[in-house]
Amino acid sequence: MKREDAIAKSEVEALAARLTNEAEGAGYHLNPDRDFTLGLVEGLLTNERRYGYRACPCRLATGDKAKDLDIICPCDYRDADLVDWGACYCGLYVSDEVLAGTKKVEPVPERRPPAAERAGGGAARTLAGAPRSQDRSSAPAPSLPVWRCRVCGYLCARDAPPGVCPICKAQADRFERFL
Amino acid sequence: MKREDAIAKSEVEALAARLTNEAEGAGYHLNPDRDFTLGLVEGLLTNERRYGYRACPCRLATGDKAKDLDIICPCDYRDADLVDWGACYCGLYVSDEVLAGTKKVEPVPERRPPAAERAGGGAARTLAGAPRSQDRSSAPAPSLPVWRCRVCGYLCARDAPPGVCPICKAQADRFERFL
Amino acid sequence: MKREDAIAKSEVEALAARLTNEAEGAGYHLNPDRDFTLGLVEGLLTNERRYGYRACPCRLATGDKAKDLDIICPCDYRDADLVDWGACYCGLYVSDEVLAGTKKVEPVPERRPPAAERAGGGAARTLAGAPRSQDRSSAPAPSLPVWRCRVCGYLCARDAPPGVCPICKAQADRFERFL
Repeated sequence: MKREDAIAKSEVEALAARLTNEAEGAGYHLNPDRDFTLGLVEGLLTNERRYGYRACPCRLATGDKAKDLDIICPCDYRDADLVDWGACYCGLYVSDEVLAGTKKVEPVPERRPPAAERAGGGAARTLAGAPRSQDRSSAPAPSLPVWRCRVCGYLCARDAPPGVCPICKAQADRFERFL
Repeated sequence: MKREDAIAKSEVEALAARLTNEAEGAGYHLNPDRDFTLGLVEGLLTNERRYGYRACPCRLATGDKAKDLDIICPCDYRDADLVDWGACYCGLYVSDEVLAGTKKVEPVPERRPPAAERAGGGAARTLAGAPRSQDRSSAPAPSLPVWRCRVCGYLCARDAPPGVCPICKAQADRFERFL
Repeated sequence: MKREDAIAKSEVEALAARLTNEAEGAGYHLNPDRDFTLGLVEGLLTNERRYGYRACPCRLATGDKAKDLDIICPCDYRDADLVDWGACYCGLYVSDEVLAGTKKVEPVPERRPPAAERAGGGAARTLAGAPRSQDRSSAPAPSLPVWRCRVCGYLCARDAPPGVCPICKAQADRFERFL
């Protein structure tokens, strides 16, 4: 008997190809261990069917999209983990150094704050669940530094510069603090 | 008799292919109705020959580039129309939802201000016709909110977040107000 | 006798293909004079072997990465040179106009400040050699204007807007001063 919701290998490979393409275009990389990566991509598709969105395959989703928004892949923590550990929590995305083999992936500690903290309404950086209707007068103060690529002028706001500039592919050491 | 300025089908298809490629790379999509799209792309090429630039095929250009700058395709109004209506004024560009078939394109009202308003010099956001020679000391106050992608830190200034982050392809609900 | 460090033609062509791909994706172009370009790319590979990084093939590197950071290709001066001269100092990158043949490449004067100036610690815009450990409280004042693409809202900080928006490919005259 055929389970109706079985995920076809072709579907997994198609999504893996698209994610690879999107990642490479912006200076990111999927894990070169193909079997490992396909397993995670299958997990993403499983979660998409289960919840309606591609929740992180390595974390427990609630099924409430607003609560899981930060762990929809790529998660809010991926880029910081790539900078600090060379891989995201799952190991689906890896850094240049890991891809080149000059750095080994270590276990990545969970960076996501506990549920109680995430639910707390007092945080300066709340989830922008409905940005389209947000009150434009209540701008949150910028709590993150803004980095500038010295080559092309690209600006981004994050704890540390990206490994590679998504626009001109200059490396992290070409970024300067801008704001 | 062969009209000298007839636009070859191959030229239309070549431009359509290039626009598709550029659109997809940045999270945009051309209308999947191929005949409809090719008709608009032919209109762009017609305008390019007539005016020297690809004025919107669905609006009346003046032939004065400085006055038409806001309706050179992609026009200044495309992204706001994609957010609000799922398509640009022409229907050349459509949103993720329209592409996926979960939203239908409705008639898109004209968002471009009337000529009198556009010509008015008092507007806070004037056309930057000659940005290279602009006086750097006369910076306009930022009149638009700045949005930040929570995944990769991408920053952009527009009325609402883009449907998809052009860098990491995270969806609009992953953006937060930054400034 | 075969020199061990001879650079294979295939290696040069592979890097040229990758650089072309990265350039085109972001609205940049390599010089269409293929032999000229391959010569420069071979120079990049020579420098990579010699110094461990792809220092500009047309400038004298010191071998001290921190001191050469601004001339690792693409250099900190490329984009300003593309705006002003239609090509970078080497001629490896050229502007839209040069690619289209509507503008000729002129000799590009050296924009890099003399070593004494670069070494001076008092500069407002110092090299961000170790951005990851930078003190977040000591943000440099923004010394460059921020430009906004009127089409997609892309923001970048540089002397003048880019020739083409790296996100939506709108041209330089669609940018406005934002900050």
